[in-house]
Amino acid sequence: MANKLIGNAVVGQSGGPTAAINATLAGVIEGAFAHSDVIHKLYGMRNGIEGFIGERLSDLTGIFSDENGELNRDLLHVLTDTPAAALGSCRKKLPKPAEDPAFFENLIALFKKYDIRYFFYIGGNDSMDTVAKLTEYLKTSDYEMRVMGVPKTIDNDLAGTDHTPGFGSAAKYIASTMQEIVRDCAVYTTKAVTIVEIMGRDAGWLTASAGLANLVNGGGPDYLYLPEVNFDLDSFFADIEKAFEKHPNIVIGVSEGIRFADGRYVGEGAQSGSTDAFGHKYLSGTGKELEYAVKDKFGCKVRSIELNLPQRCAAHLASDTDLTESHTCGRTAMDAAVSGSTGCMVAMIREDGEEYKLRYETSEIAKIANAVRSVPREFINESGNNVTEECLRWILPLIQGEADIVYKNGLPVHFVIE
Amino acid sequence: MANKLIGNAVVGQSGGPTAAINATLAGVIEGAFAHSDVIHKLYGMRNGIEGFIGERLSDLTGIFSDENGELNRDLLHVLTDTPAAALGSCRKKLPKPAEDPAFFENLIALFKKYDIRYFFYIGGNDSMDTVAKLTEYLKTSDYEMRVMGVPKTIDNDLAGTDHTPGFGSAAKYIASTMQEIVRDCAVYTTKAVTIVEIMGRDAGWLTASAGLANLVNGGGPDYLYLPEVNFDLDSFFADIEKAFEKHPNIVIGVSEGIRFADGRYVGEGAQSGSTDAFGHKYLSGTGKELEYAVKDKFGCKVRSIELNLPQRCAAHLASDTDLTESHTCGRTAMDAAVSGSTGCMVAMIREDGEEYKLRYETSEIAKIANAVRSVPREFINESGNNVTEECLRWILPLIQGEADIVYKNGLPVHFVIE
Repeated sequence: MANKLIGNAVVGQSGGPTAAINATLAGVIEGAFAHSDVIHKLYGMRNGIEGFIGERLSDLTGIFSDENGELNRDLLHVLTDTPAAALGSCRKKLPKPAEDPAFFENLIALFKKYDIRYFFYIGGNDSMDTVAKLTEYLKTSDYEMRVMGVPKTIDNDLAGTDHTPGFGSAAKYIASTMQEIVRDCAVYTTKAVTIVEIMGRDAGWLTASAGLANLVNGGGPDYLYLPEVNFDLDSFFADIEKAFEKHPNIVIGVSEGIRFADGRYVGEGAQSGSTDAFGHKYLSGTGKELEYAVKDKFGCKVRSIELNLPQRCAAHLASDTDLTESHTCGRTAMDAAVSGSTGCMVAMIREDGEEYKLRYETSEIAKIANAVRSVPREFINESGNNVTEECLRWILPLIQGEADIVYKNGLPVHFVIE
Repeated sequence: MANKLIGNAVVGQSGGPTAAINATLAGVIEGAFAHSDVIHKLYGMRNGIEGFIGERLSDLTGIFSDENGELNRDLLHVLTDTPAAALGSCRKKLPKPAEDPAFFENLIALFKKYDIRYFFYIGGNDSMDTVAKLTEYLKTSDYEMRVMGVPKTIDNDLAGTDHTPGFGSAAKYIASTMQEIVRDCAVYTTKAVTIVEIMGRDAGWLTASAGLANLVNGGGPDYLYLPEVNFDLDSFFADIEKAFEKHPNIVIGVSEGIRFADGRYVGEGAQSGSTDAFGHKYLSGTGKELEYAVKDKFGCKVRSIELNLPQRCAAHLASDTDLTESHTCGRTAMDAAVSGSTGCMVAMIREDGEEYKLRYETSEIAKIANAVRSVPREFINESGNNVTEECLRWILPLIQGEADIVYKNGLPVHFVIE
């Protein structure tokens, strides 16, 4: 049994926004209220670790207390359904502890100043890297603090968990929108190709989810091209020709990160060339490049649609399953830390059996950080131009249920922490 | 009192799809069942007048009958919430009756063949042109048939009606999505400009609706640029500089059709140059062009987002007010035709007074067709970079209420007429 560690807690959000990252924050807040015997105050870092270093903190215990000092559940509901990171985000990459110990000494001084004994960080691969480095440094320090990572990414490319919080809501939005686009494109009788560009630099999970309507009611796209398979322009043209034999309106989903066999990105022509703090290349224009290629080849009407930011922020169509799971991940992190866990990431494990069922675990962060999980080859058909039914059945449970959005004056109500 | 005209009816959908055009079709279907004493059968033209000429017809009375021959209201509900034109659409422009009487003689022969005595056409400006020409020709013919136009267009640019069915749903989607994009863009502290391109060639109604969050809860975009005001790049840059004094994340909405003072489209650089059957120029790339311009000028992160097709087909976020009004327009057309009206378009008239209230009328089509209604200058602020509160208050009633979408397996259920 771990010792009872009494003090304050801090929680931060990092990396790209999702429709469910605030549901995880809500789970951490709920946990802090439930463990008020050991956690006196829960701080929110504004803009992640960067804001913490600048001592920009919000008193979440105060914000979410009602007049009796109890958790304000109505406010928590609105927070849950608010897209993007309510605390703000950052993309700061921490130095390696061995290379810049002064950076970590400064952090420890701040933890001491605010009596922070629990540290929660909600994010993707890069954020888990932050958790791992902080954990590594703490082993060499005599300051006692428990550090927990909570996964988040619409890309679903994080290792060590069955899927990632945020993915289900993005998948539901993409699948629904794709179904609507297919309806829209079906109204005319003239030959037309519509290319929908979907987020996903290295993993095609989001593009795969665009096919869900095909499983549910047959109203999905004709083809899906994922970054896990090399893209070949001649095969692509042959696929289109084949689809034109069946109907005049072809709808295609492509991952932004699809590449030719020689490694070049299809969208490279329109690429800005700039990279982010983690060395990721910014991509844009995969759909546009293919639009021009298909127009040249077939001379028919061609249109490209970039689903863009709404993929990750369309909270109005969030998956209730995803929100509930995201919340539980946050709550599990808090419960586990209070019970003595540290240096871990919360993971969702899918139970065996017909019925979809999850259990929540904590896994050692050092084993997980920086590993990328792609769509397995067996989830993609042999021709490499679509996903298998098995893949769609794997994704389907994650988009079940609709969020209970609070509307006011015709628009969803969002919670903004000032 | 008009004579009782007994026979069959036909209904068609034309022009671009919307999230509410099937609600209007549902109103026509409901009306046909209610007037089964005079209307024996309601046919649906597949792909508008073009399909009618090819005798591609669906028996809507049969499709929407339950086992007792009554209207199947569950099916009608699903049809109402299905985006895009369930009967398909076309963009065919009819010849002038005086120039090609043979074209109309052929049409009359088909009306006789199917005993069509009622003709309903749901569409925008170009569709009302079809209704007007058919009406004109019928005056010279001894074939008795009643012709009604029912307005539809997300652009809200049709004269003779307070607003158009389909606009409210598009406005609700755009306002909600803009609010989500603003949330998403607010998470980082680095300077960034996000430019959202919204549909609207000549009228800025849809772009205006992007500002609704500013009225409701303050979470809307910084600026809106409409085609009703000449666009000036220097003023645009000055606007951005001013907004950067307040916060690092700027979100801007622009109509696809904004033009410089000399008449050139801002998006002209990326324009395909092709035109549709009505001589409309296809535009694309207004947001992209501005993205490059702002990047050159400010050197900060700039992103452009084209809301694209989801603006008109996102039925999952349709306005309940819009769906109800669209339905009523269809029903009104049927009731009015049975009562003797012909050569008319259904119009919605907003009653005076504080409370939002509509009445439905029919107006002579000849007076309406081909007139375009823009956003009045007094609905745009003096600087021409946003809309007024009065404008937002005018739009607000149209986005009220959420559609009662039927979900199955996590996705909205659509009705597809095979």
